[in-house]
Amino acid sequence: MEIRIKVVCTSLCRSDITQWESKAQPALFPRIFGHEASGIVESIGEGVTEFKVGDHVITVFIGECKKCKHCISGKSNMCQVLGLERKGVMHSDQKTRFSIKGKPVYHYCGVSSFSEYTVVHSGCAVKISSAAPMEKICLLSCGAAAGLGAAWKVADVSEGSTVVIFGLGTVGLSVAQGAKLRGASQIIGVDTNPEKKEKGKDFGITEFINPSDYEEPIQQVVKRITDGGADYSFECIGDTGIVSTALQSCCDGWGVTVSLGVPKVKPEVSAHYALLLSGRTLKGSLFGGWKPKTELPSLVDKYLQKVLQLPLGFVLHLYKVSDFNEAFNLMREGKCLRCVMHMPK
Amino acid sequence: MEIRIKVVCTSLCRSDITQWESKAQPALFPRIFGHEASGIVESIGEGVTEFKVGDHVITVFIGECKKCKHCISGKSNMCQVLGLERKGVMHSDQKTRFSIKGKPVYHYCGVSSFSEYTVVHSGCAVKISSAAPMEKICLLSCGAAAGLGAAWKVADVSEGSTVVIFGLGTVGLSVAQGAKLRGASQIIGVDTNPEKKEKGKDFGITEFINPSDYEEPIQQVVKRITDGGADYSFECIGDTGIVSTALQSCCDGWGVTVSLGVPKVKPEVSAHYALLLSGRTLKGSLFGGWKPKTELPSLVDKYLQKVLQLPLGFVLHLYKVSDFNEAFNLMREGKCLRCVMHMPK
Ligand SMILES: [Zn+2]
Ligand SMILES: [Zn+2]
Ligand SMILES: [Zn+2]
Ligand SMILES: [Zn+2]
Repeated sequence: MEIRIKVVCTSLCRSDITQWESKAQPALFPRIFGHEASGIVESIGEGVTEFKVGDHVITVFIGECKKCKHCISGKSNMCQVLGLERKGVMHSDQKTRFSIKGKPVYHYCGVSSFSEYTVVHSGCAVKISSAAPMEKICLLSCGAAAGLGAAWKVADVSEGSTVVIFGLGTVGLSVAQGAKLRGASQIIGVDTNPEKKEKGKDFGITEFINPSDYEEPIQQVVKRITDGGADYSFECIGDTGIVSTALQSCCDGWGVTVSLGVPKVKPEVSAHYALLLSGRTLKGSLFGGWKPKTELPSLVDKYLQKVLQLPLGFVLHLYKVSDFNEAFNLMREGKCLRCVMHMPK
Repeated sequence: MEIRIKVVCTSLCRSDITQWESKAQPALFPRIFGHEASGIVESIGEGVTEFKVGDHVITVFIGECKKCKHCISGKSNMCQVLGLERKGVMHSDQKTRFSIKGKPVYHYCGVSSFSEYTVVHSGCAVKISSAAPMEKICLLSCGAAAGLGAAWKVADVSEGSTVVIFGLGTVGLSVAQGAKLRGASQIIGVDTNPEKKEKGKDFGITEFINPSDYEEPIQQVVKRITDGGADYSFECIGDTGIVSTALQSCCDGWGVTVSLGVPKVKPEVSAHYALLLSGRTLKGSLFGGWKPKTELPSLVDKYLQKVLQLPLGFVLHLYKVSDFNEAFNLMREGKCLRCVMHMPK
């Protein structure tokens, strides 16, 4: 039930870097990172009927088996068969499909797209229109889809509402765009990088707050400009400490905070109980709650119909594997939005 | 806009004790506690048209002005005019209506029902059927209503679902009853007091877990008997540490945890971010999310129609003020459910 994909484009996500830098993880080495990719099916394993050679696909780090309790629930994308793979092996036999001199090379998230070719379970790839540009569409493989889903499926942003977004990277800008398309009346972006002010406007941000410009806590600034707190707030930085700020930036009674980030340091989210008692909701989701096979193709179509923009940073054309390092450096320095890499021809 | 009420019955809530014992609060002394009461309108202040002398009422610690942004929102009971009063004074003029030898005696939660007579803002009392028994119905003034609202309005428990409730006091038993009336198929009660096993059955508990009987963490026990986690979990103890256990006891994808308790010690709720990322929701509410004037009368009617039971513990008939101490002792020793006190005739 596996397919081999010729990777055409792959983007670098904060999660790749977090995992690479992580000291808490068991040593899975050597290992091939990368989980956001677009490519072309190169060959088909036994039992696969859904794909044929030459199909255009994007990879997904959580699959959809369409049979388990979660897949059939209609309310969860946490597939129990093809869920997030953490051990660096394939779902089906707990082994690797890469090796070097007979020794296993581990996978990452069941995808491992920093490679000319990769093998994934057929449930972890989504067939898309061949009209979709490979270098853009790989962003829907993770970050951009996560942001759109947070706004649409998780928070369910309503028309005329107020929204505040902490962190205007690929995810945060996609939340902004999702909120804009829902008709939110006020979309406040918070980021310490002043360059995000202009970029934010393109994606629907109506007000920009740079915390460095204020002495008072950001939740107070937000409460002032939203008359008591936003209807929705989103933590898109990956800093659990900001979750409490995001909760405090929402209003009493019906405020909803969505936690999207994967923290680099402190894994515990904490908040004063009174924030909940006064009627707030805190929720999260993996991959914006999207069921990849069932729902991603419609996002790709929306992009093709120009309903959606994708927050693309640089496109790097790779000539050799070590060129990946440039992308890693750009992201670690916070110099770009998603950096998409074209694999060597 | 105030009314004077002859208090007939008043129950003792954990919050009264928490506030009484609290060292963190500013010293509001002397002060009259009590916020769950039923009584009869004794006299009417200027401007009040909603009540007349002789009306039966229950008091509420959060009022409803019916005019502010929250009252008209249709989704919040956090009235901005008559919200939770913490300074021990009346909403209208920030003064007290009690005094002793010319010195102010402070109020509690805008109610102060441990008194033969009290004065409340007319927005903090709800007119009820005179057929309702005073000694039962005061429980709907706080604890029982909070539990029912948590199940119905906050979690919105669905038919056939699985529920786990931490703490089987008045609030927890009312959550159980709410879940049962919604048709939940499995309602698990967790309490360290073995006597709650039988009591729980009366209110809909289908399985009882006494943590002392298990060496493994309770979330593991719950996950085992619910095949991966409950659909809904409720923290009704007032221990923020249990919120994380409650979240872990819920399932991935759609699990909802409701935090109801007011903690005696640590005010910070904390949880591993991955619990949110995997699709859980954490929420809370004050008074079960009920709008008191608009919605409480229907709960009283449900009680009169025998649709609802109320988790009454003892009824103490008071002869003098110091008899309150007996109720305080009973509750502090965990010996009873709500203790209702009949005021001296
Ligand atoms: Zn990613
Ligand atoms: Zn599945
Ligand atoms: Zn109470
Ligand atoms: Zn109001």
